[in-house]
Amino acid sequence: MNTIEKQEDMRPLIVITNDDGIGAPGIMALQEALMELGDILVVSPDGPRSAQSNAITSVVPLRLHQVKGEEGLAVYKCSGTPTDCVKMALNLIADRRPSMVVSGINHGVNTSISVIYSGTMGAALEGCVDDVASFGISIDDYSRDADMTHAAEYARKVAEWVLKNGLPRYTCLNVNVPKGKPKGVKWCRQAQGSWKEEFERRVDPYGHNYYWLGGEFVNHEPGVPGTDQEAVESGMVSIVPVRLDMTDFGFLEKMEKDFKF
Amino acid sequence: MNTIEKQEDMRPLIVITNDDGIGAPGIMALQEALMELGDILVVSPDGPRSAQSNAITSVVPLRLHQVKGEEGLAVYKCSGTPTDCVKMALNLIADRRPSMVVSGINHGVNTSISVIYSGTMGAALEGCVDDVASFGISIDDYSRDADMTHAAEYARKVAEWVLKNGLPRYTCLNVNVPKGKPKGVKWCRQAQGSWKEEFERRVDPYGHNYYWLGGEFVNHEPGVPGTDQEAVESGMVSIVPVRLDMTDFGFLEKMEKDFKF
Repeated sequence: MNTIEKQEDMRPLIVITNDDGIGAPGIMALQEALMELGDILVVSPDGPRSAQSNAITSVVPLRLHQVKGEEGLAVYKCSGTPTDCVKMALNLIADRRPSMVVSGINHGVNTSISVIYSGTMGAALEGCVDDVASFGISIDDYSRDADMTHAAEYARKVAEWVLKNGLPRYTCLNVNVPKGKPKGVKWCRQAQGSWKEEFERRVDPYGHNYYWLGGEFVNHEPGVPGTDQEAVESGMVSIVPVRLDMTDFGFLEKMEKDFKF
Repeated sequence: MNTIEKQEDMRPLIVITNDDGIGAPGIMALQEALMELGDILVVSPDGPRSAQSNAITSVVPLRLHQVKGEEGLAVYKCSGTPTDCVKMALNLIADRRPSMVVSGINHGVNTSISVIYSGTMGAALEGCVDDVASFGISIDDYSRDADMTHAAEYARKVAEWVLKNGLPRYTCLNVNVPKGKPKGVKWCRQAQGSWKEEFERRVDPYGHNYYWLGGEFVNHEPGVPGTDQEAVESGMVSIVPVRLDMTDFGFLEKMEKDFKF
């Protein structure tokens, strides 16, 4: 479990980020929900960075601007990805070791396979890489005026629990909140699913083609209890513990026995 | 296991991509290595896209240009990420269902935690999401004039094996090749590690700060047999089976018992 260092006269430092950008209602709600639990350091992208996964910016340099600095709350915006934001928070900005990284509240659910594309979860995984207890939280509502009341309440509940208990060294949490008042919380596994994609071709004013990616989620395990997708569809908050170690140990064991080049 | 459909009069269709861009020596070597195994469809980024993970381009549209079209070989460049390239190959360009996606040969090793940042592995995971047998292959040499001879040889060996046997539904392979002549092949698990990061601050000609991300890899399990990092350092080709399902089942089981909100 991560050691939360008890520093005398110091409140826990909580890093907050997201992938919808600095002005998104979800990050404002998260910030408010966690204010009482510790000092808040917000480092968020300067605009939307959805589906940026664990991408790192290395081809161009990064810009960083402080937009707020008051007692218990510092806010920065960064030109990079959510993962860049966490790296900057932990390795450049924070004046002490953070106790927790929380990413969200994302406008749109990150259940099932979305965990590998999500910038929200990319940021949570990055905290985890650096041995800081981390979770991402998303709501099953894409609209900018989504009601964040319940999601914020559960963000705080999970944050309190994580601050108290820590998390295993290479594991973070993927929390997804249904629309409306949740019926409760369910620990889940990641549902198997994929996005069915279509590219829409358009022609620019100069006669050249360009393409927009569109698609819809397909649940390969519809209605299967124990999956995050089913939990959220049933009105529950799902929590999936997510591992940094992606090794398929079952197949590894088989291959070690069966197969030699 | 993925079903390789036996289509009469059709050679297997192999999709190739990378994250170093269309002109990189690694992708040229890979293309040559796999030419005899099937028809090749290359869809590669139009420039370097290292560390793009599973990022998807949705804020701006994508451009796609065919740069070669001959018997058994079609080559396209795309303005997006490696994951975008695979999505375009599978959902827009391919005239039949591909039998395999191969990503690489990456200039630089993708062992340990690099699997979550790597654009090379992002592309392999994307093939896997779409139920196409996929692997990424990288060489422990960052230089543009790296000798690709041995890496290409192992790319072909692994490709032949994958075409013949398929892979489990939600699993792809992360293949890493040492510098020089490999001593053999070892099936491995992902080593635990992280990048120790530092930001270098510079001042632009207009007096504003900007930051370059730098860092070095830290192996948390130095010299531990069975890890990909140790295998490559010992001169072996490492193969890690990588799962799309990131659930930490051990912690999930504990939480289902221990913890109720």
